Amino acid sequence: MKSGNHSHGQQGLAEDDGRATIDVLPLFHGLDGSVAEQLKQISRVSNFLPGENICEQGQPAADLFFVLTGRVALIHTASNGESVVVEVIQDGGYFGLAPVLANLPYLATAKAVVASRLALVSGVGLSDLIHFAPNLLMRVLRAEALDFVAVVQQVCDLKFRTTSQRLARYLLNLVVSDGNTADFRLPFDKRLLAAKIGCRQENLSRAFASLRAEGVETHGSSVTLHDIQKLKRFAITESVAL
Amino acid sequence: MKSGNHSHGQQGLAEDDGRATIDVLPLFHGLDGSVAEQLKQISRVSNFLPGENICEQGQPAADLFFVLTGRVALIHTASNGESVVVEVIQDGGYFGLAPVLANLPYLATAKAVVASRLALVSGVGLSDLIHFAPNLLMRVLRAEALDFVAVVQQVCDLKFRTTSQRLARYLLNLVVSDGNTADFRLPFDKRLLAAKIGCRQENLSRAFASLRAEGVETHGSSVTLHDIQKLKRFAITESVAL
Repeated sequence: MKSGNHSHGQQGLAEDDGRATIDVLPLFHGLDGSVAEQLKQISRVSNFLPGENICEQGQPAADLFFVLTGRVALIHTASNGESVVVEVIQDGGYFGLAPVLANLPYLATAKAVVASRLALVSGVGLSDLIHFAPNLLMRVLRAEALDFVAVVQQVCDLKFRTTSQRLARYLLNLVVSDGNTADFRLPFDKRLLAAKIGCRQENLSRAFASLRAEGVETHGSSVTLHDIQKLKRFAITESVAL
Repeated sequence: MKSGNHSHGQQGLAEDDGRATIDVLPLFHGLDGSVAEQLKQISRVSNFLPGENICEQGQPAADLFFVLTGRVALIHTASNGESVVVEVIQDGGYFGLAPVLANLPYLATAKAVVASRLALVSGVGLSDLIHFAPNLLMRVLRAEALDFVAVVQQVCDLKFRTTSQRLARYLLNLVVSDGNTADFRLPFDKRLLAAKIGCRQENLSRAFASLRAEGVETHGSSVTLHDIQKLKRFAITESVAL
């Protein structure tokens, strides 16, 4: 963690801004008064500029991060020095829970993709607090387990679905209406989208092309789904039978 | 969880057999006397026949499982009814920690591949006990975090390495000697190995063929690595640059 990021990010923020914010995080909403108060004492809010590092892979995990507004890319650097985006976290998402609880280094470098506002909860403070707050402990355990479940689902997707099917599932997850058609804009550029789906950029273009037959039309970042039921049938087909 | 499995599996085992066993599990080794004693009270040992189900996907997670001897396949069934092996757990490994701690259903069905002996720790008992045993809580949190890290690494591998590179890494992990050559037998049949690596069986055969150029020779389940250093260089090359 670069302390410079924090001093930079905290410019212009009132001291108690982060404390008020903690209450609205789903993980912490509605806790006992005294636990909520102690959580506020170990929390703060920071702002980050586009391209700014929030934490760095391999550094001791000092904080748990919540994205209040903005977009954060988690970038993993392999042993040969090449870097890849492994996840993109948006409003309401968080990262760093597992390394904070286990006192491990950060798994990835977090970089603000756009101007982003984050709540930071001290890892040491949180680890102390859960020993005296059974409700908080159960929430944290459940959150960590759900993170684990989500990553296991991602492994299943990567092992057993094609790039086109993973893209189809991703697009279906962006649909908010109940009808059989939808229009929306992609929340990421295609480089980040390829990283999220787990493919090369040129394979992402091929996947979009192959989804035309399933009623997916794209113009730049605008997407139209003409037949959501058809796309769903395509997305759930298992591509690998073992 | 089928209770029938347990009553079957417990035939012929002394009542305190599982309790003595708990001490040797790395997760629980060397705990305070009273905590160790309480752990023993909520643990038991069961034996499972080849092909027998140990727990079932979607059922409430009643137990945390440790494989003492044998081999257990974790099988995930997709929404369209097709099943895939997502992991194979061997001696010393465990599964079910995340769903037990979060009170979630099992993520997969566990099936004994060969005759297997498991220690079962009651999930309700463990969740109660961690509230009063800070050392045990820290171990459990750390174990869950390490599980998370391992799955994240698997996601990175699946996203950014070819089947041949993943197979090379898997083979290198089986090497126990320090030299530049090694001989060993594959611990799984090729169907399970393909599932573990995350590819179709025919792609596994192609991957083995492509590794011949890296000094990998196979005859059935016998493997000879003729140049470990060369294979390592091949395995760490990133195949996807984003």
